[in-house]
Amino acid sequence: MGRILGIDPGTTGMGYAILDAVGQGGSLVASGMVEVPKEAPAAERLLAIGTALDLLIAEHAPVAVAVERLFFNRNARTAMAVAEARGVVLLCAARARLPVAEYTPGEVKLAVTGNGGADKRTVQRMVALLITLERPITADNVADAIAIALTHAQRASFASTVAKALE
Amino acid sequence: MGRILGIDPGTTGMGYAILDAVGQGGSLVASGMVEVPKEAPAAERLLAIGTALDLLIAEHAPVAVAVERLFFNRNARTAMAVAEARGVVLLCAARARLPVAEYTPGEVKLAVTGNGGADKRTVQRMVALLITLERPITADNVADAIAIALTHAQRASFASTVAKALE
Repeated sequence: MGRILGIDPGTTGMGYAILDAVGQGGSLVASGMVEVPKEAPAAERLLAIGTALDLLIAEHAPVAVAVERLFFNRNARTAMAVAEARGVVLLCAARARLPVAEYTPGEVKLAVTGNGGADKRTVQRMVALLITLERPITADNVADAIAIALTHAQRASFASTVAKALE
Repeated sequence: MGRILGIDPGTTGMGYAILDAVGQGGSLVASGMVEVPKEAPAAERLLAIGTALDLLIAEHAPVAVAVERLFFNRNARTAMAVAEARGVVLLCAARARLPVAEYTPGEVKLAVTGNGGADKRTVQRMVALLITLERPITADNVADAIAIALTHAQRASFASTVAKALE
């Protein structure tokens, strides 16, 4: 499958994970949070996110980007800020000519734990089993970014198996 | 005040207006729609918007960008797509180091017509009175983009009058 950049855009920052996918798991090349000052104007926050994404793509040369698809389950203002950040993620991926895959939180939970309604703890435990982590992940957005990259790895691996079987 | 780039991001495209602001009005340097294929994936639509914005900024060298602030009054899916486009607008402005002002639809109506609840027709008639148009504007997003640029011109002109009076 190759190297996947997983992104979880949030309001306080953006979690990212660079995963070298192998089968259902793989190894984590890099992960972390792009922290964004909460009080900064939207344009400045999005600039920080866009700059960080361009650097991550240039440094790690992923072959695909996977990002969480947004739902409007909570606060509309929060949802709008996250959608703006998603717009920046999609733009940076498109400018780097990288394919983008989007997964809902339910799809991510299903892919990683086998249960679309799994809680955050279970997702984090499964992530730790599927990939080798040098230290435990503490930030929720980072764990989610890894889970999203893993989801894409599984989907792409399954799609390629089906394609081969049909040949 | 100088040259203002007004933007109205929509789902079928992005209206833009380049206004050379003078007093309450000014002259329209350019205006139009960046059309975006509706069936295209989000990343491609946002790439078209980002590329067009970069070109508009490079060609017309505005000193400020004014963009409509979003409200979640309608369809959540539509609102999300518009927020993603807004994210791209804010990013492009920030990368060009241009200040960004955001106005709600009510603020725009109030500034242009004196009535925050004015209908689209009234806004478009007032726009035609305030600036010299070579031909009538037919697209709603373009009329809105001009109205947003006019709103910023008025606000900035008022702020500068107040600042001078206080000196």
